[in-house]
Amino acid sequence: MATALILLAAGQGTRMNSDLPKVLHPIGNAPMFAHALASGAALDPARTVVVVGHGGDLVAREAHKIDEDILIARQDEQLGTAHAVLQTKEALDGFEGDVFILYGDTPFVSEDTILRMAEARRTHDVVVLGFEAADPGRYGRLVMVGDKLTRIVEYKDATEAERAITLCNSGLVAADANVLFDLLDQVGNDNAAGEYYLPDIIEIAWKSGWTATAVSCAETETLGVNTRAELARADGIFQAAKRAEAMENGVTLMAPETVFFSLDTYLGRDAVIEPNVIFGPGVTVESTARIRAFSHLEGCHVSMGSTVGPFARLRPGAELANNAHIGNFVEVKNAQIGEGTKVNHLSYIGDADIGDGTNIGAGTITCNYDGVFKHRTTVGRDAFIGSNTMLVAPVTVGHEAMTASGSVITSDVPNGALAIGRAKQVNKPMLAVRMFEKLKSLKAKKQKGQ
Amino acid sequence: MATALILLAAGQGTRMNSDLPKVLHPIGNAPMFAHALASGAALDPARTVVVVGHGGDLVAREAHKIDEDILIARQDEQLGTAHAVLQTKEALDGFEGDVFILYGDTPFVSEDTILRMAEARRTHDVVVLGFEAADPGRYGRLVMVGDKLTRIVEYKDATEAERAITLCNSGLVAADANVLFDLLDQVGNDNAAGEYYLPDIIEIAWKSGWTATAVSCAETETLGVNTRAELARADGIFQAAKRAEAMENGVTLMAPETVFFSLDTYLGRDAVIEPNVIFGPGVTVESTARIRAFSHLEGCHVSMGSTVGPFARLRPGAELANNAHIGNFVEVKNAQIGEGTKVNHLSYIGDADIGDGTNIGAGTITCNYDGVFKHRTTVGRDAFIGSNTMLVAPVTVGHEAMTASGSVITSDVPNGALAIGRAKQVNKPMLAVRMFEKLKSLKAKKQKGQ
Amino acid sequence: MATALILLAAGQGTRMNSDLPKVLHPIGNAPMFAHALASGAALDPARTVVVVGHGGDLVAREAHKIDEDILIARQDEQLGTAHAVLQTKEALDGFEGDVFILYGDTPFVSEDTILRMAEARRTHDVVVLGFEAADPGRYGRLVMVGDKLTRIVEYKDATEAERAITLCNSGLVAADANVLFDLLDQVGNDNAAGEYYLPDIIEIAWKSGWTATAVSCAETETLGVNTRAELARADGIFQAAKRAEAMENGVTLMAPETVFFSLDTYLGRDAVIEPNVIFGPGVTVESTARIRAFSHLEGCHVSMGSTVGPFARLRPGAELANNAHIGNFVEVKNAQIGEGTKVNHLSYIGDADIGDGTNIGAGTITCNYDGVFKHRTTVGRDAFIGSNTMLVAPVTVGHEAMTASGSVITSDVPNGALAIGRAKQVNKPMLAVRMFEKLKSLKAKKQKGQ
Repeated sequence: MATALILLAAGQGTRMNSDLPKVLHPIGNAPMFAHALASGAALDPARTVVVVGHGGDLVAREAHKIDEDILIARQDEQLGTAHAVLQTKEALDGFEGDVFILYGDTPFVSEDTILRMAEARRTHDVVVLGFEAADPGRYGRLVMVGDKLTRIVEYKDATEAERAITLCNSGLVAADANVLFDLLDQVGNDNAAGEYYLPDIIEIAWKSGWTATAVSCAETETLGVNTRAELARADGIFQAAKRAEAMENGVTLMAPETVFFSLDTYLGRDAVIEPNVIFGPGVTVESTARIRAFSHLEGCHVSMGSTVGPFARLRPGAELANNAHIGNFVEVKNAQIGEGTKVNHLSYIGDADIGDGTNIGAGTITCNYDGVFKHRTTVGRDAFIGSNTMLVAPVTVGHEAMTASGSVITSDVPNGALAIGRAKQVNKPMLAVRMFEKLKSLKAKKQKGQ
Repeated sequence: MATALILLAAGQGTRMNSDLPKVLHPIGNAPMFAHALASGAALDPARTVVVVGHGGDLVAREAHKIDEDILIARQDEQLGTAHAVLQTKEALDGFEGDVFILYGDTPFVSEDTILRMAEARRTHDVVVLGFEAADPGRYGRLVMVGDKLTRIVEYKDATEAERAITLCNSGLVAADANVLFDLLDQVGNDNAAGEYYLPDIIEIAWKSGWTATAVSCAETETLGVNTRAELARADGIFQAAKRAEAMENGVTLMAPETVFFSLDTYLGRDAVIEPNVIFGPGVTVESTARIRAFSHLEGCHVSMGSTVGPFARLRPGAELANNAHIGNFVEVKNAQIGEGTKVNHLSYIGDADIGDGTNIGAGTITCNYDGVFKHRTTVGRDAFIGSNTMLVAPVTVGHEAMTASGSVITSDVPNGALAIGRAKQVNKPMLAVRMFEKLKSLKAKKQKGQ
Repeated sequence: MATALILLAAGQGTRMNSDLPKVLHPIGNAPMFAHALASGAALDPARTVVVVGHGGDLVAREAHKIDEDILIARQDEQLGTAHAVLQTKEALDGFEGDVFILYGDTPFVSEDTILRMAEARRTHDVVVLGFEAADPGRYGRLVMVGDKLTRIVEYKDATEAERAITLCNSGLVAADANVLFDLLDQVGNDNAAGEYYLPDIIEIAWKSGWTATAVSCAETETLGVNTRAELARADGIFQAAKRAEAMENGVTLMAPETVFFSLDTYLGRDAVIEPNVIFGPGVTVESTARIRAFSHLEGCHVSMGSTVGPFARLRPGAELANNAHIGNFVEVKNAQIGEGTKVNHLSYIGDADIGDGTNIGAGTITCNYDGVFKHRTTVGRDAFIGSNTMLVAPVTVGHEAMTASGSVITSDVPNGALAIGRAKQVNKPMLAVRMFEKLKSLKAKKQKGQ
């Protein structure tokens, strides 16, 4: 059965107190809406439609960063959830199969839950996701007759008996596409807000002879995000889950509460992560690698046996071969670091290819930018780059070559050669003492003059 | 009605196990006593008197850093709270109006509570701040008759009925100055410790026909600090409040529990603060600026659209114009950074003025100190400072000028000029290989010789 | 009475999901098994035997790092705890006195508890450590008759009455060596797993006329570690205890939950530790020193009045005299830093001796490695090392000497001399502007060509 996802992402999120559309606020370094889409991916959907409204262009752009085939539907006026879903009619034109309605601000629905909804669809025309609320409060209630869902009732319209129901509405719906749009066309807006409400389709379905049912999940999966405090709490829940999962998979987290993950972080078994490490998007750390304290990684690959940090920053495109060592106050960007190669101190290696077994001295900088273009630096295997070498790209240093400390390397260095570019040291006897005396007497005069 | 603040700050704080006077231990990077004064500022006091004792000179000095008009009263012997307040008689000589008695080690009393005390003063001669204690334990009890406070009774002197009272004494008092000193003069020291207790004024007032009442606040506001563990807990409460306030105001805190504020930190709406950021005193971050992970800011101003970090340190006097970018392992101190200007890697910019649109290369250092004096560096707009440039101050680099990588700049560079100061590179064929062979054979010999 | 420790450390720890033997996973930067040994050291044991099995060589090597006199007993087959203890027979050959059986994965047993067991041994032949379990669940129960321990019964073999017992078995045992081995020889393996169980010795003792008793400790002391999540929790418990102890001792921890200790960290009174500081093994920080935020220390000594950080890294062998100052993005390794000496910015000081009152400029690097050997750098007192000086070791800079910014120092600098080694600056008028124009026009062409 073909499936399609509809993700509702049009709301402004006034309580976020932000110019950024609500669904773009990040959880685990991914926009909030990406989480529900990631769970929905378990269905291998033929089409995905994101309904945008406030900040629609921004949301569309972020959606296309995740998957450029995502279809965008625009809801220019916010006339309710049923109205929002109706805006996908064009994008789903010709689609036959199941439609799943997800929410950009409900990030924690799990793959498993979505698959259980798909399972329930085999026997019912419409499936609603409910949850047993610890405190049902003002949530909408799911009114069941046996395994049939007959109506979703708003708290304010509910009878005393209905208010006693604890199975509440999460908003998520799975339905046959044709049935869904047929039902949506019948939803009215005869209510105080004048809006078209998606839950109304259930009573219409019941009266039309379609069958609906509910699938239930843990309340935490239906957690919505409406304020920045809730956003921070949601990120905390995400982080706690990722930390537990990593430890389960055989990763050592010395102080789990100080390690921050992204949605796509991958850590291998027996990798060791010290306290205070941040994984931005796109990081892979292989088995037995060690990420030391105070390290920041994004878009990089750390191979087996490598050590990173403390105080290291790996930026996108940093690729470490096995047993590489990146030390303190070192930044690596868009660069290959060879097997067993060491960049131990105070260096910037950007747009570079460094061979195996090479030692990069403290204070080395690849001068990759001339103010207009970026250029590439190549260093061979078993080379020795002296401390404070400036590698002015484009430039190549050969295998087993060496640069003298403090040299500015502007032309290629052949294999095995030593490149040196520095002035000769001269000692001027007693000059330091005389200079200090002069400065101090100047200072004394100034202080006297005040 | 004129008001005066009295802050009691004479205690030693033996349980802190410290040579530093208790009230100087910091909460939110401000000495503990500054918090109560900050709340008291809501009254716009005509005079503020700090009563010092242990470490009095140190406390006085810190008080004058906050406001040099603060008056100091010395309590050389610690003979009780009433005695402490009496020491302010001289400082308050000629003052007519309301006096508020605050405590240096009770930092969380709120502005709102103090204003409610002022309000209650309109109808009563003396106002005491009480709190409903969850566990009244050995606190002093406020004995009320209707809205009249008749007596404050120590737990050990209380009857069974009085011990059942849950409204407890915080110690804070507001009173008419003349009434207060009149009452204080009547307090005796006929008790086990031989001390003069401030709460005794209430019973004296009641017997003398003055009216007293109580205002009640949340127990958390009256939290005192007596040990370092309590100090840490107090800092935690302070931090939690600042984090919640920032999020309320539209700031994104990706991991709120890892961000540390000072008393005066200001963050604009839609500023984004990544995990592990520390705000020392005197920081302003404007709207839409982003402070990346592992950054440390003190006494600085970050304007709209700017990015700081990861691993950046802004020290006092760092002023970033709009859209500036301070990158990793960069320190900025007492320096203006122009609009759109970038200092991306491994640099120290101190005592400098950098123009708009300028690029500062990796490893750049302003050599601002000659061992005796500090000097200033000026760089124009749209300049390009090559990597590892030493700017030996005082020195000026012009607009659209450039320095070659690895240059030591000791004299001014005119607008549009290129300054270069480095030796020419020479390649010595096969010398690296020969040198390594020699070193390795030396090593082999040494190992053999062992 | 002579005592011997037996530490059982042979288990694989399957649930850790790791290639590393369970007891080598660290708590407080020490292998887990080191904690029980540290508590056992209170007995001043004449012999210590570690029973190893899985990963035995690795465990033995780590044990010998702690104390090279530790004896190793190998348990090649895992046939139960009694069998494990029996493997120590040879190592304890000729030993007369008390034997204490500890566990490598039970790190939190306290010195005090072990001493109480020793005390109980004076009046009983065998002492078992028990704990009052909040939820006894499936723990073994200690069956007492008066103060006599008669039997340890497995949950599954227990009667209803025995299951009601809440005093549970921790596994720790103290016994006279001869009695112990006599009892162990009588333990059988007639059970489902076919293993030899240590607790069986109690019933055998009871029947043989030896007396046994139980000593009780807090349940937290008997906490075992079986998964990485439990490991993280154990490290958390360890850290919380160290933080509390430090504050008790008069150390200021501004945000205790962000400071990480090792087993042997020592902090003096009125030392101030800012947020986000990590103490690796072997750190001493003296009274009144300040460790600023984001600092990482291992194997180093920080003397009174010194300041370290923010963003500083002290590696093994870093020794700071009084009032030294190590600033941001500075790494110090195997180096003496003199009294009042400053290394404030972006430097690497390794294998060096720096005198008193010296100023090390920003960007200074000791070039201590020539690709084969490490060499030492010496700088005298009251010297001034200019920014970006490369000190190519072995090299000595004298007292009151100075190096010019950007110099590469390859030969010794006499006392009082100024050493300079840099090219002269040349300004090429308007060349920067022309170069940029050329690059920009090239870029324009390229873009047109696309």
